[in-house]
Amino acid sequence: MAPLRWGIVGTGKISQDFANAVETLPPADHELYAVAASDAKKAAEFAKTYTIPKSYGSYAELAKDPEVGVAYIGTINTNHFELCKLFLENGKHVLCEKPLTLLLEHTQELVKLAREKKLFFQEAVWSRFFPAYIKLREEVKAGTLGDLKLITVNFGVKIAEVERIFKKELGGGSLMDIGIYVLQFTVAVFGSEMPQTIKAVGVLNEEGCDLATGITLQYKDGRIAQLTTNTFTETTCDANVFGTKGSIKVPKPFWAPEEIILNGESLKFPLPGKAKRPFVYGNSEGLAYEAAEVKRCIDNGLLESPLMTQEETITLARLEDEVKKQIGVSYDELYKKK
Amino acid sequence: MAPLRWGIVGTGKISQDFANAVETLPPADHELYAVAASDAKKAAEFAKTYTIPKSYGSYAELAKDPEVGVAYIGTINTNHFELCKLFLENGKHVLCEKPLTLLLEHTQELVKLAREKKLFFQEAVWSRFFPAYIKLREEVKAGTLGDLKLITVNFGVKIAEVERIFKKELGGGSLMDIGIYVLQFTVAVFGSEMPQTIKAVGVLNEEGCDLATGITLQYKDGRIAQLTTNTFTETTCDANVFGTKGSIKVPKPFWAPEEIILNGESLKFPLPGKAKRPFVYGNSEGLAYEAAEVKRCIDNGLLESPLMTQEETITLARLEDEVKKQIGVSYDELYKKK
Repeated sequence: MAPLRWGIVGTGKISQDFANAVETLPPADHELYAVAASDAKKAAEFAKTYTIPKSYGSYAELAKDPEVGVAYIGTINTNHFELCKLFLENGKHVLCEKPLTLLLEHTQELVKLAREKKLFFQEAVWSRFFPAYIKLREEVKAGTLGDLKLITVNFGVKIAEVERIFKKELGGGSLMDIGIYVLQFTVAVFGSEMPQTIKAVGVLNEEGCDLATGITLQYKDGRIAQLTTNTFTETTCDANVFGTKGSIKVPKPFWAPEEIILNGESLKFPLPGKAKRPFVYGNSEGLAYEAAEVKRCIDNGLLESPLMTQEETITLARLEDEVKKQIGVSYDELYKKK
Repeated sequence: MAPLRWGIVGTGKISQDFANAVETLPPADHELYAVAASDAKKAAEFAKTYTIPKSYGSYAELAKDPEVGVAYIGTINTNHFELCKLFLENGKHVLCEKPLTLLLEHTQELVKLAREKKLFFQEAVWSRFFPAYIKLREEVKAGTLGDLKLITVNFGVKIAEVERIFKKELGGGSLMDIGIYVLQFTVAVFGSEMPQTIKAVGVLNEEGCDLATGITLQYKDGRIAQLTTNTFTETTCDANVFGTKGSIKVPKPFWAPEEIILNGESLKFPLPGKAKRPFVYGNSEGLAYEAAEVKRCIDNGLLESPLMTQEETITLARLEDEVKKQIGVSYDELYKKK
């Protein structure tokens, strides 16, 4: 198979980590082919740093480059919707950072579009591609834990003072930043069915960004998930699944883990090979798992990864939507203005 | 001061542990003076085992014994209300096992009665009298954790098959059995003010007993408590408080702890001296803390312990009441029949 030619969209921190991680994969499989930013200079600098042949000062140019095999969208959340649309409409496969969009209807529209166009389209829930998650889901499926009864996840990091969290115009709030991870964990374990009951509280700032949430989900067969996000305080940041026959703990960082603890026994999954440069975010080495899975899917004609399906992406968006409604968070005005 | 003369009401497991624990205290301070059960033979056997001078085959007889200094009520939850009333009306100080009653209005009525009668009246939330809890509350009060932001507590034990849990006529359900502990922990840390928002889900059996719950409380100043009980699965059974400057973990068993972990540092509080006989429940040695506090209060003319006030007992009952309403649990019919 030919190498997959990546077009990197956006030159921020997560794009840097992603490019850094792709470089650790075999060059025969992956090529950092192009990069685009709204600022041509930034794109050129990024291209230089990561030895990327082409750079563009507009996203549309990258979308029209016939050599790009897949677009990786790493821009801020508020423009994921329009960029996904741009690339899909230009016939590109797309891997877009989570949250895919800020509105349920946008996510639904994009999934519909990708399916119509028969393009690979994936929400970049990178956690799912970690060997630790694959093992966790295998054990759950094999019944090792018996009947599942309870999930608890807390994700607390002191980021209340960070602009992307407290500013509404940047799609602020803890739910759409770190809440994605506590919700996706639940969907990974309990499946993509919707809960029977959703109950949420949120601590909102003056702009209406949620700086903390508490979410309780009740699923059929007496399963409960208790989830919380917090940007004021550092928490244990672990995820736990309890069943009638046992439990699994995913220690911090549960969103990018190297370990799971199955009935008290530690199972280790070391990160892949070292990158040339340091990463911005912890365990970003693991972005390589995601990039490798994208190539595997595209090579095999899959339009989504079975490890994070579009159905799950829509469930995630539905959960986010209901929680937002209950706690009084809305991003509608961001899109009405445009 | 003369020794406090205990009247033990009920001869079940918790009364056994309580008598066993009182025996570890100095005889100059505490005397197991009388015991009562509805079955005179059981009372006599209990009296023999614990070398108690008097035994009664009815609670009313014990209530009328002028030598009894304080009644310890350790019977099943469904008759706490009538027994507290009986002893208070007979002028006895009362220490009654939690939950004090199954209905908010019963708890309110009893507190009112005790205040009118100027009698010591205490809900036996034994956790509160453990040195670990006293230290935890001191640290919270001193501001060691900064502004409090989040509490998480899970209490999961496999007792779904135990009669007192699944039978409505016994006051079944996880909330009124182990839920007391997750709620009292929250009140201990966040105080006796009511939360601004209470959201709960419950997994109910055919009789309407909750076998699992998920409770989220939102307090003013952006404080959240996420609490869960489960009788199907064993959980980590720890309690955590997170503030802007630090955190405290109370490891399993958080309801009767020998340790707290303050910003990662373990502080140990070993249990008091060994009893003559083994205990039924884990760490029941710690019931001695509670008994000692009752004597201290009575000797000093206090009508309730500052470590677990009647105001907190009423808050606890109000929280239980609201959660029961939300999840569809009611004990009203138990009292209408009578």
